[in-house]
Amino acid sequence: MNNFTYTLEHSDGEARAGQLSTPHGTIQTPVFMPVGTQATVKTLDPLEVEAIGSQIILSNTYHLYLRPSADLVAEMGGLHRFMQWPKPILTDSGGFQVFSLGPHSKIDEDGVTFKSHIDGSKHRFTPESAIGIQEKLGADIIMAFDECAPQPTTHAYTKAAMERTHRWLLRCIAAKTRDDQALFGIVQGGVEADLRRESARFIAQQDIPGVGIGGLSVGEPKEQMYGMLEETTPLLPRNKPRYLMGVGSPEDLLEGVARGVDMFDCVLPTRLGRNGALFIPEGRLNIGNAKYAREDAPIDATCDCSTCQRFSRAYLRHLFRTEEVLGLRLATLHNLRFLIRLMEQAREAILQDRYQSFMDDWLSRFQTIPH
Amino acid sequence: MNNFTYTLEHSDGEARAGQLSTPHGTIQTPVFMPVGTQATVKTLDPLEVEAIGSQIILSNTYHLYLRPSADLVAEMGGLHRFMQWPKPILTDSGGFQVFSLGPHSKIDEDGVTFKSHIDGSKHRFTPESAIGIQEKLGADIIMAFDECAPQPTTHAYTKAAMERTHRWLLRCIAAKTRDDQALFGIVQGGVEADLRRESARFIAQQDIPGVGIGGLSVGEPKEQMYGMLEETTPLLPRNKPRYLMGVGSPEDLLEGVARGVDMFDCVLPTRLGRNGALFIPEGRLNIGNAKYAREDAPIDATCDCSTCQRFSRAYLRHLFRTEEVLGLRLATLHNLRFLIRLMEQAREAILQDRYQSFMDDWLSRFQTIPH
Ligand SMILES: [Zn+2]
Ligand SMILES: [Zn+2]
Repeated sequence: MNNFTYTLEHSDGEARAGQLSTPHGTIQTPVFMPVGTQATVKTLDPLEVEAIGSQIILSNTYHLYLRPSADLVAEMGGLHRFMQWPKPILTDSGGFQVFSLGPHSKIDEDGVTFKSHIDGSKHRFTPESAIGIQEKLGADIIMAFDECAPQPTTHAYTKAAMERTHRWLLRCIAAKTRDDQALFGIVQGGVEADLRRESARFIAQQDIPGVGIGGLSVGEPKEQMYGMLEETTPLLPRNKPRYLMGVGSPEDLLEGVARGVDMFDCVLPTRLGRNGALFIPEGRLNIGNAKYAREDAPIDATCDCSTCQRFSRAYLRHLFRTEEVLGLRLATLHNLRFLIRLMEQAREAILQDRYQSFMDDWLSRFQTIPH
Repeated sequence: MNNFTYTLEHSDGEARAGQLSTPHGTIQTPVFMPVGTQATVKTLDPLEVEAIGSQIILSNTYHLYLRPSADLVAEMGGLHRFMQWPKPILTDSGGFQVFSLGPHSKIDEDGVTFKSHIDGSKHRFTPESAIGIQEKLGADIIMAFDECAPQPTTHAYTKAAMERTHRWLLRCIAAKTRDDQALFGIVQGGVEADLRRESARFIAQQDIPGVGIGGLSVGEPKEQMYGMLEETTPLLPRNKPRYLMGVGSPEDLLEGVARGVDMFDCVLPTRLGRNGALFIPEGRLNIGNAKYAREDAPIDATCDCSTCQRFSRAYLRHLFRTEEVLGLRLATLHNLRFLIRLMEQAREAILQDRYQSFMDDWLSRFQTIPH
């Protein structure tokens, strides 16, 4: 684990600027991680993903396990080589996806039995197999197998799920064999402040190099999510990175950083992009709107991405209207660059002790749109 | 028209190596032109299209007229600027597409009335309007409005369509106003040797900078197409480029060059690519085939494209199986580069007086597959 260290460079209130070193390079935090569910960040070439400043990407154990299979990825030299992404990768444990299958997944103390969303075939994940699969995939950061309790639910069930998550973490730690991968545990506890605190304390005690915060941004009001973060991060070790899982709206990134989060991932920017919903400093625009038909301006005149440097809103709208694949790609590229640049700017502000005013200023221009 | 000249550098039998200068740069022939129907070469960024050695692309008047409209493209500074393609562009006249609409198009001596394939709305093209639209789009090379008679048909109808095409060419020449665009006339005549000769002689007499050969590769046997070329090209001026329209299989490119053709375009390589059918020196492989699941080799080890330089067949197959957009793109890129490189090699062989042996050698390895 010597090739995995986190250095807290500077704090500004709760906001943190840090460096996370991994076998595939060092990550400057706070950081947004683009999602490459099926070993590809949808519509983009890995060279483009790199060119927009992505430092680390996330890929999904559940999807890769089903197709092309962890064995095949291992045989092809691991995920980095298979998908030609030379920088760090984080894989989730498959837990979140499996629980999202609803009636097609069944949990017991030992693990989860589920049916493939592709062909209905039956499969089983346990903490041990989730680690085994992730070891075959070969990401730099791997996640513990956890239970993300469906919301809303009772305090009792949230507690039971949290306690199972804790027991499973110990099994994950025991199952792990590779020393070139960092295992992160996951704080659960739903929207129950007492459980969040209990889970944070438990996770903080483990000998693991990083902490995931799971079970948030699953439908609860934003204020409640921010509140849960405030219960959690102060109890976490300062010398370990904190990763808020599945969070990716610009305002949530900024609010998360303000509450001590270092890492984020979400399909939101890529999914919105493919729907023609594009981030701009004022909020979001839908490129399909007729009012952009003759607009010669770029999506965002302040953006340094290759889409905004070259193409007009009129051209983007034409591509979406004619359902041309290039449109999906140019939009995805912009949205990802928007969030990555936001985190670059946040980091700069933290290092200069002006994070709060940077965030206030940024949010005062940005009109939040529910998604 | 001073910025448009063709120089025949060298002949090797009927095969020709030349240079075609246009306001947006010089094209080395023989050349394959990727098709960007809707102001985008499907799935590719113009920077990628350029990186694979594309010297000129084709775009379609019919499609651009309907969406986003020629007026809008003109307002955005013309097609080059709208789609950010800095090199030469050729637009077709819309004739071929309109006649492909079958019962939804109706021809008379003055022009064609047709219904949009998008919304069924009624429109009309005439030789004059086809030129007017192409002047608004602003391509370097524009094509005369012609009638491509449906095959098979009678000698009488083919003759009537050819004669109308000739009358329409004179109207196109008269209608043309921009002097920074080169208008090509089109030889028609179906699969009738006498009509092909008559059409070639008529087109050869006109004061136009280039000649299209239309109405071939529309279902007739390959040998018949090659025979028609042999009737046509010897009657065309040596000092003007010859463009065989809509032809794009590797073997047809080589056979066309052998019969004096300089320029080709076709949706075949891009369409095949999106279907996972990939050109290799031995013919074609279908990347969806299970036998490629664990193949670490590139699509074509002899190819210099960015797909083959980086990705395995196993990864490509995974992308196609999971319906990931990146797969379409990597496949398209390879297939286009394959044809462009083939024309580069053909040119080299012509300049070295060894075209026939180059072609024989190449075709002896390549297994033709009907498409
Ligand atoms: Zn941008
Ligand atoms: Zn290739």
